[in-house]
Amino acid sequence: MDGKNTKTFQKKTLFNDPVYGFIKFPHDFLYTIIDHPYFQRLRRIRQLGLTDYVYPGAVHTRFNHCLGALHLTTMTIETLRNKGVEISDEESEALSLAILLHDIGHGPFSHALERMILPFGHEQISLAVMHLLNEAFSGKLDLAVRIFANEYHRPFFHELVAGQLDMDRMDFLHRDSFYTGVVEGKIGYGRLINMLNVREEHLVVEEKGLHTVEQFLMARRLMYWQVYLHKTALAAEKMLQSVLNYLFTMPEIRLQTLVPEPLRSFITEYEASGNLKLIPPETLRRFLTLDDVDVTNLLKCLAKSEPGVPNMLSNGILNRKLFKIHEQDHPFDPAEISEVRQMVMENLGLVQYDQLDFLVISGNESSTIYKGGESEIRILSKNSEVKPLGSFTEVHIQPAKTTRYYLIYPKR
Amino acid sequence: MDGKNTKTFQKKTLFNDPVYGFIKFPHDFLYTIIDHPYFQRLRRIRQLGLTDYVYPGAVHTRFNHCLGALHLTTMTIETLRNKGVEISDEESEALSLAILLHDIGHGPFSHALERMILPFGHEQISLAVMHLLNEAFSGKLDLAVRIFANEYHRPFFHELVAGQLDMDRMDFLHRDSFYTGVVEGKIGYGRLINMLNVREEHLVVEEKGLHTVEQFLMARRLMYWQVYLHKTALAAEKMLQSVLNYLFTMPEIRLQTLVPEPLRSFITEYEASGNLKLIPPETLRRFLTLDDVDVTNLLKCLAKSEPGVPNMLSNGILNRKLFKIHEQDHPFDPAEISEVRQMVMENLGLVQYDQLDFLVISGNESSTIYKGGESEIRILSKNSEVKPLGSFTEVHIQPAKTTRYYLIYPKR
Amino acid sequence: MDGKNTKTFQKKTLFNDPVYGFIKFPHDFLYTIIDHPYFQRLRRIRQLGLTDYVYPGAVHTRFNHCLGALHLTTMTIETLRNKGVEISDEESEALSLAILLHDIGHGPFSHALERMILPFGHEQISLAVMHLLNEAFSGKLDLAVRIFANEYHRPFFHELVAGQLDMDRMDFLHRDSFYTGVVEGKIGYGRLINMLNVREEHLVVEEKGLHTVEQFLMARRLMYWQVYLHKTALAAEKMLQSVLNYLFTMPEIRLQTLVPEPLRSFITEYEASGNLKLIPPETLRRFLTLDDVDVTNLLKCLAKSEPGVPNMLSNGILNRKLFKIHEQDHPFDPAEISEVRQMVMENLGLVQYDQLDFLVISGNESSTIYKGGESEIRILSKNSEVKPLGSFTEVHIQPAKTTRYYLIYPKR
Amino acid sequence: MDGKNTKTFQKKTLFNDPVYGFIKFPHDFLYTIIDHPYFQRLRRIRQLGLTDYVYPGAVHTRFNHCLGALHLTTMTIETLRNKGVEISDEESEALSLAILLHDIGHGPFSHALERMILPFGHEQISLAVMHLLNEAFSGKLDLAVRIFANEYHRPFFHELVAGQLDMDRMDFLHRDSFYTGVVEGKIGYGRLINMLNVREEHLVVEEKGLHTVEQFLMARRLMYWQVYLHKTALAAEKMLQSVLNYLFTMPEIRLQTLVPEPLRSFITEYEASGNLKLIPPETLRRFLTLDDVDVTNLLKCLAKSEPGVPNMLSNGILNRKLFKIHEQDHPFDPAEISEVRQMVMENLGLVQYDQLDFLVISGNESSTIYKGGESEIRILSKNSEVKPLGSFTEVHIQPAKTTRYYLIYPKR
Repeated sequence: MDGKNTKTFQKKTLFNDPVYGFIKFPHDFLYTIIDHPYFQRLRRIRQLGLTDYVYPGAVHTRFNHCLGALHLTTMTIETLRNKGVEISDEESEALSLAILLHDIGHGPFSHALERMILPFGHEQISLAVMHLLNEAFSGKLDLAVRIFANEYHRPFFHELVAGQLDMDRMDFLHRDSFYTGVVEGKIGYGRLINMLNVREEHLVVEEKGLHTVEQFLMARRLMYWQVYLHKTALAAEKMLQSVLNYLFTMPEIRLQTLVPEPLRSFITEYEASGNLKLIPPETLRRFLTLDDVDVTNLLKCLAKSEPGVPNMLSNGILNRKLFKIHEQDHPFDPAEISEVRQMVMENLGLVQYDQLDFLVISGNESSTIYKGGESEIRILSKNSEVKPLGSFTEVHIQPAKTTRYYLIYPKR
Repeated sequence: MDGKNTKTFQKKTLFNDPVYGFIKFPHDFLYTIIDHPYFQRLRRIRQLGLTDYVYPGAVHTRFNHCLGALHLTTMTIETLRNKGVEISDEESEALSLAILLHDIGHGPFSHALERMILPFGHEQISLAVMHLLNEAFSGKLDLAVRIFANEYHRPFFHELVAGQLDMDRMDFLHRDSFYTGVVEGKIGYGRLINMLNVREEHLVVEEKGLHTVEQFLMARRLMYWQVYLHKTALAAEKMLQSVLNYLFTMPEIRLQTLVPEPLRSFITEYEASGNLKLIPPETLRRFLTLDDVDVTNLLKCLAKSEPGVPNMLSNGILNRKLFKIHEQDHPFDPAEISEVRQMVMENLGLVQYDQLDFLVISGNESSTIYKGGESEIRILSKNSEVKPLGSFTEVHIQPAKTTRYYLIYPKR
Repeated sequence: MDGKNTKTFQKKTLFNDPVYGFIKFPHDFLYTIIDHPYFQRLRRIRQLGLTDYVYPGAVHTRFNHCLGALHLTTMTIETLRNKGVEISDEESEALSLAILLHDIGHGPFSHALERMILPFGHEQISLAVMHLLNEAFSGKLDLAVRIFANEYHRPFFHELVAGQLDMDRMDFLHRDSFYTGVVEGKIGYGRLINMLNVREEHLVVEEKGLHTVEQFLMARRLMYWQVYLHKTALAAEKMLQSVLNYLFTMPEIRLQTLVPEPLRSFITEYEASGNLKLIPPETLRRFLTLDDVDVTNLLKCLAKSEPGVPNMLSNGILNRKLFKIHEQDHPFDPAEISEVRQMVMENLGLVQYDQLDFLVISGNESSTIYKGGESEIRILSKNSEVKPLGSFTEVHIQPAKTTRYYLIYPKR
Repeated sequence: MDGKNTKTFQKKTLFNDPVYGFIKFPHDFLYTIIDHPYFQRLRRIRQLGLTDYVYPGAVHTRFNHCLGALHLTTMTIETLRNKGVEISDEESEALSLAILLHDIGHGPFSHALERMILPFGHEQISLAVMHLLNEAFSGKLDLAVRIFANEYHRPFFHELVAGQLDMDRMDFLHRDSFYTGVVEGKIGYGRLINMLNVREEHLVVEEKGLHTVEQFLMARRLMYWQVYLHKTALAAEKMLQSVLNYLFTMPEIRLQTLVPEPLRSFITEYEASGNLKLIPPETLRRFLTLDDVDVTNLLKCLAKSEPGVPNMLSNGILNRKLFKIHEQDHPFDPAEISEVRQMVMENLGLVQYDQLDFLVISGNESSTIYKGGESEIRILSKNSEVKPLGSFTEVHIQPAKTTRYYLIYPKR
């Protein structure tokens, strides 16, 4: 009943999340990390890049998502402990840190520009940032780093961070469903977590959760094609990537002065940094000052520049005058692409043929329902055996991969 | 701006549905039917029988569901008309009536006692009731009856009432998900309806709704195993059926006086009515006075009767002392069943061997993901062809059937 | 990691509540009580009587509500403990029991028939049932009884059970809002609970929760007039009360044989039992076999009886042919009532004038925003003083009472 | 049944709003406006400025809100027409346009920087933008402008755009409640809209909606103190204003080169533009290129500048190291403020006393429950009289104004 104590506690405790309501975290050090500028920066990075062009409500940030994934982790630790799985406080904190920081390596517009500013995937960058923080906090993240890097001897901890049923996916599917309004993407995270257990140090799902796992996989699949790879959002993201690609490969000085720092330095150094095995700490720190604002600001600068490809793309993105996109389940015929290039060239009255590469964009995207093999989802059957998901006769979904091919180009 | 007019309109208009918010219906005659005692009776018939023993929130009624299905129908008619599908006001009213009355033939505890009070399926009874009402309202339901009986020359109307993507399923899946709290059963009814169209007078779904259809089918499957055929609810329902079976086959007078009218007459007449091709109007009218209250009241009477099978079952149901249930994916070995019967006989000190048939209950339940063949879901591809769902390479779910076998018996 | 242990735990643990999701309770004995027939009976008592005639979704039961209030109590105990309020495990269990059983004394249709079957309020009956259970469980409810009866020396426990911000109200307001679809009645239970604290053994709300308290009181007020005292539901409930009143005061044998047991005995004994100070255990046990089914069954019996007041009222209720209701903020003029009686008498061609008392019904209902005085809501100000809600200049709502007068009679 | 027609329709039709589901608008021209760069710009302006520092989910934009308000308007027009209020198609489109554009004049961070970039309120700027668009679209917005400016002879149209129960408030209260997670701020927009009517060309609410209006007003009040004027968000916004104030009044060249265009020109011109009666079109067009990105980009530039007030404030905002804030219901004593200034000066080792004005910030904020007088909410009583809300004896809330005084300064 100590008032001061109470207030300190309270201050630390509650986030009001529109998805889960009031949430709080069990380790003080988590709040220290949340307060850190590297983490606060996630407030300025949208979870779904340019997807709000299709789903206007989907403007939520990586910050929201990381807190949400941490909340589900807190629930999961409690559930597993209740089932008799021994988890020490040190392990609990380490797992929580690994989840909290799993996306700290994301840069502007998350996946939309992944590997385009630094030539590394976001997990590699996250790991590097965790090392940086571990140094700053004198080794307090040692175990978290090992869990994240899958070097801890109890693999289920890593599986909760990066597995087929990890806390990351559970939160983002549910949250993205909430913010996009795609209600059918909602997953039964409460039931899933309650069905989790651990056998031989691996994460398992109790058999009575079989259909919830199936539904989870189908909801994920739906979200991929309905949201994450939605053709309109894809067109916008490819246009954005094209802007950066242009700047990389067309180093006209005139343009580069239009590119504000600190982005300009990344563009200049990009090619050279491709050979790096490790991210130099100075580069990493600089990267950690970037967020969506830098890229949108770049677009706004380019949109006022003289006519040309960057100007055209930037105005298109900013004003949502998006390119046309065709999708099909087999590759586009090179002849068809040629034809489209020819048409675009004529329409725009272009003289430089090489500019077409930034205006007529083709490629493919694919999504897998779930992975079989080594990392297959483990089910704990009613008679206490651990068997892979695919071995249950009731399960009718396969670990199939779907690929779609796209062709994007300016309208008219 | 006529105040009186306004009030009349308002009075007729609004239902406050917890699932959809304020809803209203476009034809006055629908309100006449809703106000009819036959329809009001649905207020006393729970949508999910005894499922509230597993999901305590699931106490909603057929009344709610029928209004909900009608609301989705109203939305669908508007959407189809907006897409240029011609639907006359007469057709709109008839379709609405067919949906509103599609479940009017349900008796006490809906599916749990289907065919056990009258030896007809609920659709047959619904049709008979529609004929009854049609007579009472001088033919105003003519077209509704034809649509319901699939005798109208535009089959999509029937498909909206009883097809693989009908308004009935859309409402009950969504509503049952809402009331049970099984959030992962939620379907994207808004998107589904917006993707509906009509080609060659058949219902089709536009290709961009493909994944929503997949998710709908998986959500349905999940709801079947997680809710409609949940083992605990199944045990309760089989116990309830056993009570009626006992009364049918053990016509001891002592017991039958315990059975209150009007149920008693149905039990007495049951065998005889099995040969009927048509339901006599007098029987039907009597059936339409029955609701959950009659059956629960029966259980309460039997629960106070002298010891024996009916007493035991009734007390078990009322006080939720449910029988044990085993489930497996293959039939139970007759030897195993014999063993269980022997054990139950000893435990209960039974003398009459034939009573065991009402205490040790075995059988199976199955559910099909979706139907192929003639009634397969039709997809309208991007290039305007109509093709069956299964022909799309992106679709990985099969029209598979899953069967589970159960064995139910008293504990200890 | 003991599988068996796990299963036992799981079995006991989870209820899937559509309002709160998965909920579980911290004391095993709570599950024993939930499994008791007295408590299971609450599954057959609707929370809101006949309110589903206005809000068709509002068919939830006292069973749901009691589990919900228990869940909020579990949350509150955790919150208070986190703030340093010492609550022993024994106190936690006792408070939980008191909440779980606070409505166990409700009879058929809850408030609609309160004091009409037994001449006691539901709290008195609840206390009597708690004594009964306490005996059955050898004193395990001792402390729960003291808390419920406000005889424990730490009054905040009682305030959580029966105060202006108790767990009962928090759950029912939120839950009734959910099931009726009256979304604006939703309260911020999460925030309210997080703002609770204890000072001098009384419940207080921290000042920053001031507006949430205000909103809670206004939401309660809204729910009273919009739902609990909605004129249409009021008409239905008054008609139902009239049926019972008729049976009490018109002891024609003909009628009473129509009244099924066990209701009949209560009607016969009612007058005599009015003088009782205590409820005889035998009567109480008999009362605990009653539920909504008995009353609806009575209505169904009367609806088939010969023409007359009970028949008319019963058919009216069952088929939702409700009486007309007028409401105003001042008493109805006796002359006006006389006129209505005269008109009804003529319309119905009644010969027995005294039957009119059961057909023309007048009275009033009132609701108070909040209580001042002794039990006023206590606020813990920012500078740690405890002051009554009304003393804050920011608070503009008064503890005002609103009364409405009604006049109900048959249409036409 | 014309395929092409269908596609065109579909393309125009549906937004998936997480708050209302699928929404569409009845006039084609609305889509033309939505597609306009001025309107698309609202995608880059957050609805609630820096409020996400308190409620991390509250990152939604003005774009979302304007579409939402438009949706409620569509519902309202349909409801009023159903009640017999005559609304021509032209009026319907004009009202829709007025609502759609009511916030088009908002600049970066909405209210947080209102009047700080251009010395005009956002409504004045909105009106100016509407004139601009009206010119561009050859007078198609004539009537919309008149409604917005309250120059149309049917005042209820204006009242729906800017009144005490307008579509703007209904959407933002509901939407902000959704995104913040402050569930108790939810309003019954469905019921409110259904209770709206028109009498003598003024908007009225039917009496049975009285309590919903009360609850709406209390929810609004709650949202003001709990969200819009939340002390932490207020501190952040005052710090942001302080940055701009510093740049206005401390025109050191060194700093101004750090301020990127186009913001720099606004800062330079601000003082001069204070005398303007009208916004010059060129200035307006420039203003319409600004959004949150420009201001956040400014903060990021200043955060890297040399130490000093702008650097300190910018880093504080970006990294959420917010100043301390005290609030009370009466003005702060000048002596207390002096003391705080002295303390801050010493703590920071400041030499320039005048910099303190940007670090120690005091002032007040107030909120009124509702306005009485001329614009009072009109209620249509049961006997068809129009009376002000305050005249109903059942209404206990007063048009009271609450003021809070704040004092903000750096921690430690």
